[in-house]
Amino acid sequence: MNVLIVHAHPEAQSFTSAMKSAAVADFTAAGHTVVVSDLYAMNWNPVASAADFGSRGNAEYLNYALEQRTNADAQTLAPDIEAELKKLEAADLVIFSFPLYWFSVPAILKGWFDRVLVSGRVYGGRRFYDQGGLKGKHAMLALTCGGRDYMLAEGGIHGDIDKILMPVLQGTLAYTGMTVLPTFVGYHVPYLSQEARGDILQSFREHVANWQQLKPMSMPVLAAFDREMKRLPSALEF
Amino acid sequence: MNVLIVHAHPEAQSFTSAMKSAAVADFTAAGHTVVVSDLYAMNWNPVASAADFGSRGNAEYLNYALEQRTNADAQTLAPDIEAELKKLEAADLVIFSFPLYWFSVPAILKGWFDRVLVSGRVYGGRRFYDQGGLKGKHAMLALTCGGRDYMLAEGGIHGDIDKILMPVLQGTLAYTGMTVLPTFVGYHVPYLSQEARGDILQSFREHVANWQQLKPMSMPVLAAFDREMKRLPSALEF
Repeated sequence: MNVLIVHAHPEAQSFTSAMKSAAVADFTAAGHTVVVSDLYAMNWNPVASAADFGSRGNAEYLNYALEQRTNADAQTLAPDIEAELKKLEAADLVIFSFPLYWFSVPAILKGWFDRVLVSGRVYGGRRFYDQGGLKGKHAMLALTCGGRDYMLAEGGIHGDIDKILMPVLQGTLAYTGMTVLPTFVGYHVPYLSQEARGDILQSFREHVANWQQLKPMSMPVLAAFDREMKRLPSALEF
Repeated sequence: MNVLIVHAHPEAQSFTSAMKSAAVADFTAAGHTVVVSDLYAMNWNPVASAADFGSRGNAEYLNYALEQRTNADAQTLAPDIEAELKKLEAADLVIFSFPLYWFSVPAILKGWFDRVLVSGRVYGGRRFYDQGGLKGKHAMLALTCGGRDYMLAEGGIHGDIDKILMPVLQGTLAYTGMTVLPTFVGYHVPYLSQEARGDILQSFREHVANWQQLKPMSMPVLAAFDREMKRLPSALEF
């Protein structure tokens, strides 16, 4: 199996980085092939712009998604985007490793989504959700945060972590067709003892080792909607 | 009144940019002072890193939020961050103008949140939500997207737009203490006629002109939680 880990933390000695390294070691020991995109180490450019395109369908006006399609067809995407796409397309399991910044991914990882998940290549037209171009691949978020578990739960001050992460879990990963596995969250990490961090690291290693037993999250299915993406009456009870 | 518009679109001729320009013109005509941070035009750096800090509490290990506090106290934040903070602190109303990318803001704007909303300066300790450092200011999202309104509604294929935007509305804007006004969404924009776009532009101008009449969104209140941020029994019915 091929595993891609997209990692976004500015401190190489961080606990988040240690989680990433443990996953690399464990998958490698199990005989899998692991590729890491360490976005900070790569000095990854997160800004979607006209510079991403080697050719232009319309040189006067930038419609980013439209130019993604034009450049996917013409094979003229910027080399850094193409390199990440090749890693993604070769992967069976993709793990995104990051600290929670403002209820979401750090900008450097958001820009990986913006630039690498190319319209016309990984989704487009009616190829999204269960019909998305990355169908068959599995994805998982592995994150750390400062809050405690009860603060990021239903009824807690911030609300349920799955709802907080919905734009990434559903709106990004499931949208491209990937099967989304339950997220691993390391809570309260900056404030924990080394021993408590060790326990979290062990839980993470077990979560990852058992990934094939994890129950995928429930996501929208195109069959429940008509051609205009209106919900079919027969699907109302779903 | 001082208005800050933080704008993030890679195409200066875009409809999103036209919305931004209309808001600038209307606020200016009404006698207000408007400042625009046009992130693409500024070549804004969205990547939170050690380079953001002119001094370090710990030079060996980067804890980003901790160094934000150290550098806020020492007044040694990077000049681009400090410049944005001064604009933010002078503003009474802040409008964020962007196209929806992956159910969220473009990375260049996510990086404005990551770097400018500095711990120790705009929030920190028990200064968050209704006790946040930006209390008294108002914030509004003004965005465009490709989807139709019924696709981004409860029961629609993607779900309710306010839930999609929750990490920004609650987890970012309300978290810093700002009063969050209802979002303006321009739906289906890339596929609309010029006439239909004109109608959306007019609706946006009315939304903005009437901002003081808009009902702020409901957000968490610290008084409902104890010192450990556990919900108080007396607040359960809220």
